[in-house]
Amino acid sequence: MPSAAKIEIPVPYDRAVIREAVSELRLDLKSASIRDTNKLVNTLQQRLGVEFIRMEFGVPGLPTPTIAVDAEIHALREQQLGSVYAPFEGIPELKEEAAKFVKLFMDVEVPPSCCVPTVGAMQGCFASIALAGRLASEKNTLLCLMPGFPVNTIQTRFLGVGQATIDFYDYRGERLIEAVDERVRQGDICGILWSSPNNPSWVVLTDEELVGLGKICDQYGIVAIEDLAYFGMDTRVDYFVPGQPPYQPTVMRHAKRAICIISSSKIFSYAGQRIAMTILSPELMASESTYLEESYGTKNVGEAFLSRSLYPLTACAAQAPQHGLLALLRAANAGDRSVFEPAQEYSRRARIMKKLFVDNGFRLVYDRDGERPLADGFYFTISYPSFEHGGDLLAELLHYGISAITLGTTGSCRTEGLRACVSTTGDEKLAILARRLERFREDHPL
Amino acid sequence: MPSAAKIEIPVPYDRAVIREAVSELRLDLKSASIRDTNKLVNTLQQRLGVEFIRMEFGVPGLPTPTIAVDAEIHALREQQLGSVYAPFEGIPELKEEAAKFVKLFMDVEVPPSCCVPTVGAMQGCFASIALAGRLASEKNTLLCLMPGFPVNTIQTRFLGVGQATIDFYDYRGERLIEAVDERVRQGDICGILWSSPNNPSWVVLTDEELVGLGKICDQYGIVAIEDLAYFGMDTRVDYFVPGQPPYQPTVMRHAKRAICIISSSKIFSYAGQRIAMTILSPELMASESTYLEESYGTKNVGEAFLSRSLYPLTACAAQAPQHGLLALLRAANAGDRSVFEPAQEYSRRARIMKKLFVDNGFRLVYDRDGERPLADGFYFTISYPSFEHGGDLLAELLHYGISAITLGTTGSCRTEGLRACVSTTGDEKLAILARRLERFREDHPL
Repeated sequence: MPSAAKIEIPVPYDRAVIREAVSELRLDLKSASIRDTNKLVNTLQQRLGVEFIRMEFGVPGLPTPTIAVDAEIHALREQQLGSVYAPFEGIPELKEEAAKFVKLFMDVEVPPSCCVPTVGAMQGCFASIALAGRLASEKNTLLCLMPGFPVNTIQTRFLGVGQATIDFYDYRGERLIEAVDERVRQGDICGILWSSPNNPSWVVLTDEELVGLGKICDQYGIVAIEDLAYFGMDTRVDYFVPGQPPYQPTVMRHAKRAICIISSSKIFSYAGQRIAMTILSPELMASESTYLEESYGTKNVGEAFLSRSLYPLTACAAQAPQHGLLALLRAANAGDRSVFEPAQEYSRRARIMKKLFVDNGFRLVYDRDGERPLADGFYFTISYPSFEHGGDLLAELLHYGISAITLGTTGSCRTEGLRACVSTTGDEKLAILARRLERFREDHPL
Repeated sequence: MPSAAKIEIPVPYDRAVIREAVSELRLDLKSASIRDTNKLVNTLQQRLGVEFIRMEFGVPGLPTPTIAVDAEIHALREQQLGSVYAPFEGIPELKEEAAKFVKLFMDVEVPPSCCVPTVGAMQGCFASIALAGRLASEKNTLLCLMPGFPVNTIQTRFLGVGQATIDFYDYRGERLIEAVDERVRQGDICGILWSSPNNPSWVVLTDEELVGLGKICDQYGIVAIEDLAYFGMDTRVDYFVPGQPPYQPTVMRHAKRAICIISSSKIFSYAGQRIAMTILSPELMASESTYLEESYGTKNVGEAFLSRSLYPLTACAAQAPQHGLLALLRAANAGDRSVFEPAQEYSRRARIMKKLFVDNGFRLVYDRDGERPLADGFYFTISYPSFEHGGDLLAELLHYGISAITLGTTGSCRTEGLRACVSTTGDEKLAILARRLERFREDHPL
């Protein structure tokens, strides 16, 4: 709606129009999924002829670094790789560069064979959960540290893996480790999954917490699955000097049974081409379980993951994106910081947007990160004093041209809040956001 | 090994070197997988300093049409889509063009919503088998018409779906339909899967057979899964005039519960970029089953397939390849035959190569297609009179610089034969193949 944006219709919008659209789509905003909310906002934009401040979808909004685009084009045009299947375990050059990246930015040594390109972090996660759920017959429940990525729940369900949860809001530090240990001791947990920096709370697990989680996984023979969807995006710290501390905190340094999934969607703003790295610890990769044979026809973990999971899922990751990611990692490993610019831009926006919300009476639901102040990143979480349920707050914010999703949808125990994503709110929209929030506060005095 | 190819070492090669490599890799050639065989041949090429006539891997060997490459580059550079997730159900333009393609080349009417881009036919197949296996509690066995694509077996195993088989060698025409009906009547079959033109036998199901299979699927409420990996590559017939008969034979014309998967890997020589179309019949797409809820959280088939399968598997198919395929379909729909050239080149090669084998005493295992002569395509099947097992024939052919895989590996009941793929044997290698086969015949008199 680029033309409609020029004529700003004052907020709040026509209540009847919004009520009608919600009812037509048969939505309950308290439980509406990201995609339902997305569809609703598309409808509202069209019917009202306005442009929303859209914070519901975690879509990267910055261009992919040219270095990746150029490498993709070279792979297609000069190397003519469009016709050739890549090896299902990934092209050798990318595996080698990934191992270097993991050493230089995470201080973890793994051989290239343990670095596997996947069709996005989504595929890496899917295959990892499947593997964890099939390693031992009695262990078939995944412990998810919450809030989290809603699609992980769809994945566990598809795979017939149970789900247990523990929320960061209630547990951090030693208490988190104790709570996890207590739950794992019940004997049914096959793995522990978390994202850090965390979607949506943006809390970042500390080294002490990662040590504790890794120890539990090794002790009970279960798998740590670390979703680094927001690699390096704890912007309180500069993780981007290769080979120099501080390093991206990771459970890979503290566990022998770990899988770490590094998305390129956000850090490199590369979501459209579906390419990520999944790193398996060498000990896990080489380990065996006779229970795997039923599903994979092999007892070897590495074979189960590569030729019996990634191969039957998509044959391989596409050629050009593998070469694009290769170019990005090569640049990063050589000290070219420009490839990390998307990550830093999101952080800058988060700082400004959070302030706009807080200045207008909103609160941050997840407002602290253990002892530290919260970092600024891709997401933050908000609530407003007089609203008891995030669904009600969302319904009201829609009238002010602002969209988000409920924290409930993300598996959070904090049902009063919303998750807000900064990615599509460029500088040109910040003044509009400010005006809308001011009007919201006027209409909803504290 | 481009340089080694220039000095032709006479066949047969040193038996000790080959024996040693087989033993080092711990291979039993009677059951070695494609990838094991591939690895062995790589090793042999290196140690012997020779280049094999490689017929083991079904890798496309011709460049992807420029029209696709240009469209991918435009999507990345001009449209800057590298950073943007595609809709998980596919980009609207591609869905529309796919619906047109299906109408013009298959004479089937489906709405764009039923045309879904997938990360290769592999993903389409995986999601289809999962869906079929979860539609009814008592039906959890997939009936596979054999020979077939070996990875389907890995997929069913991963998904916990059983597998039953019926072989084209034994059954065609009415007898095929009777055999299928008899097997389905046992009550445990959830779907029927086949590829046509068939990998590796290159038999093509007739309209009568497709009518029969479709009827059985609708009658018993099970799903027809048609793998059109080799769309249009029955080169006895010209399927490439849009909107004019003859049309690609398909079960979609004869069944209400059908999924048809159209790979672009071979017909457009586009394997490296992992993009295919999966077409669901509108009736199946709209149907419901309460049994789906356990795995998908919905009883609607369309939702289960899209937002509960493709989405949690890879989030979406990558942007640039979707635009590449869009350009190819647009050209094909407009009558540009150049995009189908790869298919025709493979057929030309098959004709020549089959003759070389037959002239030197080999037989075609699958040598007839019902009443018709066999078509020339991507694969053909061979045996040699004095060899009782394909594994023995393969072992011997390796000494003559020729590789293939056993028919046993493809699920065929004909254990005496081999599957040969024509894709990597360009014109420059045909004289070498001829010389090697002649020597093979001299050494193995009939």
